[in-house]
Amino acid sequence: MPTVPATQDQETGTSAAPSNGARRGRPGYDREKLISVCVQVFNEYGYDTTSMGMLSNHLGISKSAIYHHVNSKEEILEEALLRALDSLEKAMGEVRTPDSRGIDQLEGVIRGSIRVLVDQMPYVTLLLRLRGNSPVEIAALERRRRITRTVEELVRQAQNEGDLREDISGKSTPRLILGMINSIVDWYQPGGPGTTDQLADTAVKMVLEGLRA
Amino acid sequence: MPTVPATQDQETGTSAAPSNGARRGRPGYDREKLISVCVQVFNEYGYDTTSMGMLSNHLGISKSAIYHHVNSKEEILEEALLRALDSLEKAMGEVRTPDSRGIDQLEGVIRGSIRVLVDQMPYVTLLLRLRGNSPVEIAALERRRRITRTVEELVRQAQNEGDLREDISGKSTPRLILGMINSIVDWYQPGGPGTTDQLADTAVKMVLEGLRA
Repeated sequence: MPTVPATQDQETGTSAAPSNGARRGRPGYDREKLISVCVQVFNEYGYDTTSMGMLSNHLGISKSAIYHHVNSKEEILEEALLRALDSLEKAMGEVRTPDSRGIDQLEGVIRGSIRVLVDQMPYVTLLLRLRGNSPVEIAALERRRRITRTVEELVRQAQNEGDLREDISGKSTPRLILGMINSIVDWYQPGGPGTTDQLADTAVKMVLEGLRA
Repeated sequence: MPTVPATQDQETGTSAAPSNGARRGRPGYDREKLISVCVQVFNEYGYDTTSMGMLSNHLGISKSAIYHHVNSKEEILEEALLRALDSLEKAMGEVRTPDSRGIDQLEGVIRGSIRVLVDQMPYVTLLLRLRGNSPVEIAALERRRRITRTVEELVRQAQNEGDLREDISGKSTPRLILGMINSIVDWYQPGGPGTTDQLADTAVKMVLEGLRA
């Protein structure tokens, strides 16, 4: 079970209690921890398949106790997706400086995205498995597409600056890079042998320098 | 809607009729076409979520008409997964010749897998989205793992032969390569601008030579 750090509660602005805390007097769950468990259930069974009854079973609390924290299943989804997207966009924003070369920004985006994927794995997993069946999902997928377009722009910029080869598809290349990065949620085990930095090093070497000796 | 070519019927060995044919007197569907439509429904709604009633609605035939062709939803899944896995393993088998260098086999595996992903996209999509909840799924995932292990062996062989750089993770590299390839089912549109060969060229250049100019 991934650990989720205590963060600011988005609704009240107060600091949420740690995961075993008891905000608002509910034993065992604060809003933060409740969402974290729900995201795991979504990832295991699929968001559409998961009912409030299933969430209640996995949390070990009644449905009305869940509604004490959130108004709907969709609110849980929305908050989880916001977390994933905010983190990914923040990582991109940190490397998008106007005076740096495209290839350096591209490397920064690869490293930053991998760090977010590993740190926020359940939330990003949920994002990547979305089918886009509701306004919340459609909005999240639009933000995902903006990330893809940013990587597309960086590839083009790096080509224009003479740092990236020209004999590749400008449409496929960004998607292959992101596909490689996103696959990490399917197979990487945080805490296993090898650090996140080593993983990012391997990805950057492969994408920019190639594997050939 | 992806077109599926008429092929040998696995059960009878007779040639299946084209998709608008009427084998066994059922209007509109032969077994081949029926499975193809069911796979699209599985991919859209998720295999677990899809009921025989939903398949009946999408096919526009009764449930008993479906049972005329197949015994169960799981039989449809199994046949679709076999098709994806047989094609992927065939593509790998074609390049796994004992006297060729690891790096050349690796390139062949990348090109062959991409060709299968594009040609058999709905079937491979189904395979890649499996959650492993039944014996059929578990068996399919075990065959997928064998493919990963083969790519792992090829990376190691190419490193031992001095063709692949040593300063990369032997565990992450094969998974990043496969993740990049597998992402194709999420974004590639067959028939769009650019051929499958161009897509494979871009992937091979990125993995082996790197993007840096």
